[in-house]
Amino acid sequence: MTQTMTAETTRTHTRAATMRAIVKTQAAQGAEIREVPVPVPGPGEILLKVKRAGVCGTDLHIWAWDRWAQSRMKPPVTIGHEFVGEVIELGPGVTSATLGDLVSCESHVVCQTCLSCRTGNGHVCENTKILGVDINGGFAEYVAVPAVNAWHVPPNIPIEMAACMEPCGNAVHTAFAGPLSGCNIAVTGCGPIGLFAIGVARAAGAARVFASDVSAYRLDLARKMQADAVIDSSKENFVERVHELTHGRGLDGVLEMSGHPAAMRDGLAALRMGGRMSMLGLPTEPFELDWNRLVIFKGITLHGIIGRRMYDTWYQMDQLMGSGRLDIRPAITHVMDMEKFDDAIALLREGKAGKVVLVPWGEKA
Amino acid sequence: MTQTMTAETTRTHTRAATMRAIVKTQAAQGAEIREVPVPVPGPGEILLKVKRAGVCGTDLHIWAWDRWAQSRMKPPVTIGHEFVGEVIELGPGVTSATLGDLVSCESHVVCQTCLSCRTGNGHVCENTKILGVDINGGFAEYVAVPAVNAWHVPPNIPIEMAACMEPCGNAVHTAFAGPLSGCNIAVTGCGPIGLFAIGVARAAGAARVFASDVSAYRLDLARKMQADAVIDSSKENFVERVHELTHGRGLDGVLEMSGHPAAMRDGLAALRMGGRMSMLGLPTEPFELDWNRLVIFKGITLHGIIGRRMYDTWYQMDQLMGSGRLDIRPAITHVMDMEKFDDAIALLREGKAGKVVLVPWGEKA
Amino acid sequence: MTQTMTAETTRTHTRAATMRAIVKTQAAQGAEIREVPVPVPGPGEILLKVKRAGVCGTDLHIWAWDRWAQSRMKPPVTIGHEFVGEVIELGPGVTSATLGDLVSCESHVVCQTCLSCRTGNGHVCENTKILGVDINGGFAEYVAVPAVNAWHVPPNIPIEMAACMEPCGNAVHTAFAGPLSGCNIAVTGCGPIGLFAIGVARAAGAARVFASDVSAYRLDLARKMQADAVIDSSKENFVERVHELTHGRGLDGVLEMSGHPAAMRDGLAALRMGGRMSMLGLPTEPFELDWNRLVIFKGITLHGIIGRRMYDTWYQMDQLMGSGRLDIRPAITHVMDMEKFDDAIALLREGKAGKVVLVPWGEKA
Amino acid sequence: MTQTMTAETTRTHTRAATMRAIVKTQAAQGAEIREVPVPVPGPGEILLKVKRAGVCGTDLHIWAWDRWAQSRMKPPVTIGHEFVGEVIELGPGVTSATLGDLVSCESHVVCQTCLSCRTGNGHVCENTKILGVDINGGFAEYVAVPAVNAWHVPPNIPIEMAACMEPCGNAVHTAFAGPLSGCNIAVTGCGPIGLFAIGVARAAGAARVFASDVSAYRLDLARKMQADAVIDSSKENFVERVHELTHGRGLDGVLEMSGHPAAMRDGLAALRMGGRMSMLGLPTEPFELDWNRLVIFKGITLHGIIGRRMYDTWYQMDQLMGSGRLDIRPAITHVMDMEKFDDAIALLREGKAGKVVLVPWGEKA
Repeated sequence: MTQTMTAETTRTHTRAATMRAIVKTQAAQGAEIREVPVPVPGPGEILLKVKRAGVCGTDLHIWAWDRWAQSRMKPPVTIGHEFVGEVIELGPGVTSATLGDLVSCESHVVCQTCLSCRTGNGHVCENTKILGVDINGGFAEYVAVPAVNAWHVPPNIPIEMAACMEPCGNAVHTAFAGPLSGCNIAVTGCGPIGLFAIGVARAAGAARVFASDVSAYRLDLARKMQADAVIDSSKENFVERVHELTHGRGLDGVLEMSGHPAAMRDGLAALRMGGRMSMLGLPTEPFELDWNRLVIFKGITLHGIIGRRMYDTWYQMDQLMGSGRLDIRPAITHVMDMEKFDDAIALLREGKAGKVVLVPWGEKA
Repeated sequence: MTQTMTAETTRTHTRAATMRAIVKTQAAQGAEIREVPVPVPGPGEILLKVKRAGVCGTDLHIWAWDRWAQSRMKPPVTIGHEFVGEVIELGPGVTSATLGDLVSCESHVVCQTCLSCRTGNGHVCENTKILGVDINGGFAEYVAVPAVNAWHVPPNIPIEMAACMEPCGNAVHTAFAGPLSGCNIAVTGCGPIGLFAIGVARAAGAARVFASDVSAYRLDLARKMQADAVIDSSKENFVERVHELTHGRGLDGVLEMSGHPAAMRDGLAALRMGGRMSMLGLPTEPFELDWNRLVIFKGITLHGIIGRRMYDTWYQMDQLMGSGRLDIRPAITHVMDMEKFDDAIALLREGKAGKVVLVPWGEKA
Repeated sequence: MTQTMTAETTRTHTRAATMRAIVKTQAAQGAEIREVPVPVPGPGEILLKVKRAGVCGTDLHIWAWDRWAQSRMKPPVTIGHEFVGEVIELGPGVTSATLGDLVSCESHVVCQTCLSCRTGNGHVCENTKILGVDINGGFAEYVAVPAVNAWHVPPNIPIEMAACMEPCGNAVHTAFAGPLSGCNIAVTGCGPIGLFAIGVARAAGAARVFASDVSAYRLDLARKMQADAVIDSSKENFVERVHELTHGRGLDGVLEMSGHPAAMRDGLAALRMGGRMSMLGLPTEPFELDWNRLVIFKGITLHGIIGRRMYDTWYQMDQLMGSGRLDIRPAITHVMDMEKFDDAIALLREGKAGKVVLVPWGEKA
Repeated sequence: MTQTMTAETTRTHTRAATMRAIVKTQAAQGAEIREVPVPVPGPGEILLKVKRAGVCGTDLHIWAWDRWAQSRMKPPVTIGHEFVGEVIELGPGVTSATLGDLVSCESHVVCQTCLSCRTGNGHVCENTKILGVDINGGFAEYVAVPAVNAWHVPPNIPIEMAACMEPCGNAVHTAFAGPLSGCNIAVTGCGPIGLFAIGVARAAGAARVFASDVSAYRLDLARKMQADAVIDSSKENFVERVHELTHGRGLDGVLEMSGHPAAMRDGLAALRMGGRMSMLGLPTEPFELDWNRLVIFKGITLHGIIGRRMYDTWYQMDQLMGSGRLDIRPAITHVMDMEKFDDAIALLREGKAGKVVLVPWGEKA
């Protein structure tokens, strides 16, 4: 990479004054398409022309303005935290990117100075701000991000996949949190991150990958992601089915993506002695566990997982995608114009989509 | 060590026909001193003359004949699973011990053939039998154990300490389950294993070791074990106190020895982002947790801990005790004749003892 | 599995008095087919009817009676340490196998009592005896082995693959000694274990697997094992080629299978900062290294690898083979009658074979 | 900490125009005290009033202008890379430090953008610049450093100890590279970092710490650092002595601080099977090893160690020093005026000093 050393802003484009963006304008349900100023990259930041953006479950919470959203957000904010774009402007001091680079973005903007950040654990930075939640995000024509948050997209991967590196990184982080190679792994919950996790576990060397959910639609996508077996836990006994599938060995690991108490309990019960459960799914409420039987007597290790390791997770994902081992396209069910954001939300609320990718104004699908 | 290769039993003593032992004779509260046959070591077993034995909380459960005891035990059984003795007879095929050796014993008799056993995880063997619970134990003049369960006592450590290697091994296993050197560690719950854990964490290189309990008696013992600070969680806010003591950093690790929901929640709340909690204490009932706030958003690792790693834990403990770094005597509050077992039980039920060590008939304290 | 609890020998066959075997009869080049007594399984042992056996480089050393062989072996010994067989007799006390089971064998017979053995590191037992080297092995119609050394073959894998689990386990041990999932891995040296390692690294989730050797024949086999690229280090600059293939990133890990100083130096030079090299290949002589440039300044981790982890490695291999992820058949170039052992040796000495598998007398290929 | 958010430089002092400093002025032996301009902190940098500075072996190489120095340095450069100072000026954008803070400094200025830096391995950054070698250092009244390189000194530790955090961090990094708690550890080579390593290994929970060297003076300092035993390898057989001291167990780990081939070979020979050697000492030349006997057959892990993990190592050291567990003062043998730098060099060249700490002009010892 040719480095561009500069104390000044560098750009090749003629910066527009305004752009279209999807903005959470008020403390109520919904989100609106607005004409807003194009952001100006500050010191250490870069400006991206957004190429594609993914819709996340978090965006549904924001749209619905639920309790979590109410407690966290301060409208107006341009939403969207999964995206890929072209670098079109470098703020002062940026040397790690070049105009024209295609980059996907880590959505957690971390402080770099707390103990977590200083010891390689930026994913649990105490002062995290999230793009599209706490600061303006990528459901827009342009977005400004810290240069350090940009990851150069491996060559030759489809642009839609590049848009999904942030959520796929959640799957990679969860999968890589414990033993994987040669293991019997179950993914409980087949939303987009669960679907990605099936692909990640397979690509990263799990011996067998099972997937469970209660939605036939999602289980069908799990099959397309090449799960070795899918389990409809509304109809089948998860623990017994795993027992059969593993010839009595049980699971070496569970990647918990649903946040459902039953999935977690079943997952723990289906783990072999000494297995691990890595939990990314967020329960909607506290729930109880039979600690003795499910955790202590079995010598289980539980990991709470948030975000992506910065940037080990990105490196691992880059390697898996760039080498062709990991293909997450079967989980990307819809590519739609960003203009039709409300339709995307409707699809997701009806459970009729895997990952939905949006195409900003002016970009061609 | 001189190995004695033999296909026959080897012994130097004149084997007595009967001995005194504390036996759970019936499915009801209590235990009785009985005259029973001296055990005969089978293939791969050794016979010990018991020198000292420790009383465990489990023995209280057995004595009280609570729900757990009722579901697990089949009287009559000679109880006692913490003990040290002299090898006085070798069963057929034993080459790893010599007559006269002083050995402490792992209480878990494992199958050696299940997946856990074959992959170095015998502590979670699916077919574990426990001495003094499932098979005859060491509250007796003699006990027969598999030779593989014997650990040669490091020279020059007091015999009372040698008697407590089994429960101290629980503390070592818990402490060594995650980062320790240079860490801020809290031990929640100051029963005997908690007290041992204070000493273990200090000896093994923790920077600061804090201890919490609700009993003034136990907190006093914690001070004697050289905890850097003790916290009476019935009177003080644990989380705030830890915050002060660590200058805002929080804990790197919690060794959970109480089984109390409040201790576990407080421990998780006082952990720094990315910290670990290793749980040995057994909750009496399932309880709920705010998973998002306490585990997932903080990127916490939880370990369920049972038994001792076989035999890594014993090696680590041997090194710490044998080098003089670890001295657990302050936690051993009583040394009593085994004859007075009922008095020992009474003391423990009143919360007026740390570890109680018993001296069998014919041995001198 | 139905367990057969017995203090006596159990068998269903009529034991023959003698059998044919390949025996190192004297301290000189060569090995002879001899009629020898059928072994009798002792306590804890099982008798196998050998189905297939693999020829190892070590067998060549024994045949050639080189310095190593001279220093280690005490003829007469039945050779052969890679084999699969059917359990036809159980020695006293054996409960982990049943007559009729198909098992592959760990060749290291370890003491179970040294510190290494007791802490899950039997592969570095100080008292290891090797089947076919120190005690009679499996180039024979029958072989007696400790029951604990038997691994039940996963169903549905080809019998030739089952015969190669021992050497394939070396590859698994080496590969699993450090990070693998998502990594750029090079295998330096494409003898049979190197070839297996290519398959293992791929199956276990490496992003890219490169293989180097100086033999066109072996590089061709490496391609058949689906190496992402092969490097003829007699003609190409290994470091530069790796640089190209990894877009400048370098290797995350090297699996060193050649024992050649140049391969090791090139491997270290091609590693990225902080990478790992796991060394299984045995150098024929001590050799020097530029420690500062190749190891210290780069923060490299080097692992010396011997044998197979007992039995983590076998579990991992079982999972990879049993799930169909790992197919090592392309590396098995010859299946020959055991009677033609001298032809097998000749082929191997000429470098015209990958793994050679032998079919004992009375078995059909 | 009160954060000072600023886009401008902040300072409370009246900046002097010039200062005294020890400068490598030319490509020849020696170094000179010169009057040079006071540095001006750039964006992200802070200016320190130097309180104390340590002299390192590297400074001797620079002074002597040996081959390494010739290949690396471009005079004139103000030397000195171990120091502690008070923050007296904040460059633009600095928020992680406050005027008046006392900070010790990481000497490696890393790029933050290479793969190593982005994955928590800044210590092996490919673009490292070293203070006092590649850019102006701290043998001066003032020094400017990146704010990210500053570590707030734990309260109540002696200022001389704070000056030595950089080299002590090398010892911490080496010690923490493998198992430590409960281990038998040898430190081979008792220069200042070796001496620090003795204290670190003890504080961090090693069971026994042995130290070897060939200098009686250094071995005496090793005793003062509370090594459990010292070995004069010019007079005693290291391997035999370790065997005795560990009752035949051998070492769990070696912290290699000498760079001597014999020390490394002896260290490897004295390791138990499966042990680890972490190498920080730099050999002056390539040297050969009997890989089979010393590394591969023993299943040894070797770590090349450079710098300090950024900033895990600093956190660990802070905890050990701040809690009072680690006291490295016995290894600091001289505190001298910086003006007398040539005397310090002479002492070190004669082997008559442990760590020498310098007091800059205007500071009182």
